[in-house]
Amino acid sequence: MKHISLLGATGSIGTQTLDVIRKHPNHFKLESMSVGKNIELAIEQVHEFTPKLLSVQSEEDYDKLIHEVPSSTRVVHGNDGLIEVATTEKSEILVNAVLGSVGLSPTLAAIQAGKTIAIANKETLVTAGHLVTEEAKRYNVSLLPVDSEHSAIFQALNGENIKEADRLILTASGGSFRDRSREDLVNVTVREALNHPNWSMGAKITIDSATMMNKGLEVIEARWLFDMPYEKIDVVLHKESIIHSMVEYIDGSVIAQLGTPDMRVPIQYALTYPKRLQSISHERLNLWELGALHFTKLDMDRFRCISFAYEAGKLGGTMPTVLNAANETAVAYFLENRLSFLEIEHVIEQALERHSLIKKPTLEEIIAVDAETRAFIHSTIK
Amino acid sequence: MKHISLLGATGSIGTQTLDVIRKHPNHFKLESMSVGKNIELAIEQVHEFTPKLLSVQSEEDYDKLIHEVPSSTRVVHGNDGLIEVATTEKSEILVNAVLGSVGLSPTLAAIQAGKTIAIANKETLVTAGHLVTEEAKRYNVSLLPVDSEHSAIFQALNGENIKEADRLILTASGGSFRDRSREDLVNVTVREALNHPNWSMGAKITIDSATMMNKGLEVIEARWLFDMPYEKIDVVLHKESIIHSMVEYIDGSVIAQLGTPDMRVPIQYALTYPKRLQSISHERLNLWELGALHFTKLDMDRFRCISFAYEAGKLGGTMPTVLNAANETAVAYFLENRLSFLEIEHVIEQALERHSLIKKPTLEEIIAVDAETRAFIHSTIK
Repeated sequence: MKHISLLGATGSIGTQTLDVIRKHPNHFKLESMSVGKNIELAIEQVHEFTPKLLSVQSEEDYDKLIHEVPSSTRVVHGNDGLIEVATTEKSEILVNAVLGSVGLSPTLAAIQAGKTIAIANKETLVTAGHLVTEEAKRYNVSLLPVDSEHSAIFQALNGENIKEADRLILTASGGSFRDRSREDLVNVTVREALNHPNWSMGAKITIDSATMMNKGLEVIEARWLFDMPYEKIDVVLHKESIIHSMVEYIDGSVIAQLGTPDMRVPIQYALTYPKRLQSISHERLNLWELGALHFTKLDMDRFRCISFAYEAGKLGGTMPTVLNAANETAVAYFLENRLSFLEIEHVIEQALERHSLIKKPTLEEIIAVDAETRAFIHSTIK
Repeated sequence: MKHISLLGATGSIGTQTLDVIRKHPNHFKLESMSVGKNIELAIEQVHEFTPKLLSVQSEEDYDKLIHEVPSSTRVVHGNDGLIEVATTEKSEILVNAVLGSVGLSPTLAAIQAGKTIAIANKETLVTAGHLVTEEAKRYNVSLLPVDSEHSAIFQALNGENIKEADRLILTASGGSFRDRSREDLVNVTVREALNHPNWSMGAKITIDSATMMNKGLEVIEARWLFDMPYEKIDVVLHKESIIHSMVEYIDGSVIAQLGTPDMRVPIQYALTYPKRLQSISHERLNLWELGALHFTKLDMDRFRCISFAYEAGKLGGTMPTVLNAANETAVAYFLENRLSFLEIEHVIEQALERHSLIKKPTLEEIIAVDAETRAFIHSTIK
């Protein structure tokens, strides 16, 4: 029996994590969870999974919910609440499925408490990869990927020596607008951007897929998870999202992980690693039903966010922090119809250009740069 | 430094094995080798690789060659010669790249001498899989696959628990005639059959690819190498031969090994396992250059040899021995223009139908059934 803490229970990864726990009641028990704004769903989840601890965002949420959940569930709130969930004593593993750099502090707290981290919150690694990986080393804690691409690479490295890996090859579906030219992108709507062809995901990551910033963030995430230089991380467009990613070895062999696009597979793998458990769905991958898998070279001019990410990643220090904070803020404005689609790129570029790099930032410096970047984006919008 | 014995040095796998040894002189040393009819090439190879022992097929070959090789190379011949090569004291590994069931006795001898076996000679496992795998277990000897498909599966099982594997998926290019109907096959010539679209291989295996018996033999080989029931071994047509094979796990994840079609990659992997060494070629797999990978469901009525193989495999005992002996003999006749292409299937079917199964045959019984089957095919041809 594995005891689990879950940050972001009502989001897309959160609910799918609960699907996995529901499917395997003899293997997993939810000890604690945090939720965002969806209080109604949170109440349902607490009744079903009876965690001992629940964290909500605000005092108001606390008041709304406290009489709706069984008294066996203690309710806390705010950032301290997140940290309480992340460090729940009985849990061996923290699934970090919150959105954005807010996931950073609870991740560091969980590492220091010796928890295994199943990391779906890529912004944490993008914004402060060096801090997170250093702490994980220091506390001898595993960072297990939940993103399908990184789970694929992680699986393709099973039983292998990473020093013999020559290249990580991330696949990218290309998102909602993969077949459009830049000219076609000028007037696209939020609704169009939210219509991802393959994956059912949250709003922020779906927009990130459309701008391809998601793949850029994943490149940086891969750099930290697998300690690979950017020169050895490639991206290939693969519209079917069947090959989730690959590792090329020095002998020319390429190991790939494939599957139907179902996030519950990598989530479950992170929870069962190094073992595997029966599939949650009964859908099997039969390649002949697909007929063909397609691959296209990535055009960095078409997808500028990916080149921003490579550049920010190579510069290092606080640059990825800026990249991520600018992107989070810009995407939020886009979802509110206050920025156009191509303006997302534009304001990120501006934020990167004006930033003075701090080479080895502390946690405090990262938090400050994050806040300052968000303030800059706010100021440019008004 | 790994010391190597090589059976079948002048064949396709043999020469490619020597390519690998030549590329990595600090890692490999050829201790002994056997050759078939190509005495001229054998002399060249002995001069280049200076093995201490060489085995030729006949006394005549011995006489032809003995004054052409340096005196530091001892020359032997016949079946005893093969066994001497297979059991060379200083060698840790035997690469068995001979053709046909003649590879069986030296393989068993090498196992009993504690050598690791790199097995390219699939007929050995087809004809006597239970004997070979039992002996390997008894002497705690590893059987490492050299076939690209089995090497792919072996690599896809790296670091995994084979009990969590749900299905082995062998890919098949479909061979020279993959786009032809059965009607189109009536009058195909030897030359047409020898023209394989992807792989450069020996004549026998190229014909086996055209009839798809090769894939049938590989299914049986996979059953023995990975101890998997036939119900869990599938074949999918994949004309580009880029995904070399796959393993599907119980959680729905599929791990695949990919690469350009170059036999030196799996050969080298068998020699370096569990490590990897720099690629022998500088060709990298860039999927966008290919554009697409295609997959088609296997039609067992179109490729009857595969259903023969599944049936013979499931019946077990001496049935696969008959399948293999009948096939070897029929292909030899086809190459001599004494059987038509579709008659290969026909005589194999006849041989299987008339055979009385021996459930757990001894080595002697296998050798007898092999000889008897060949005699039967001879009798039907004349």
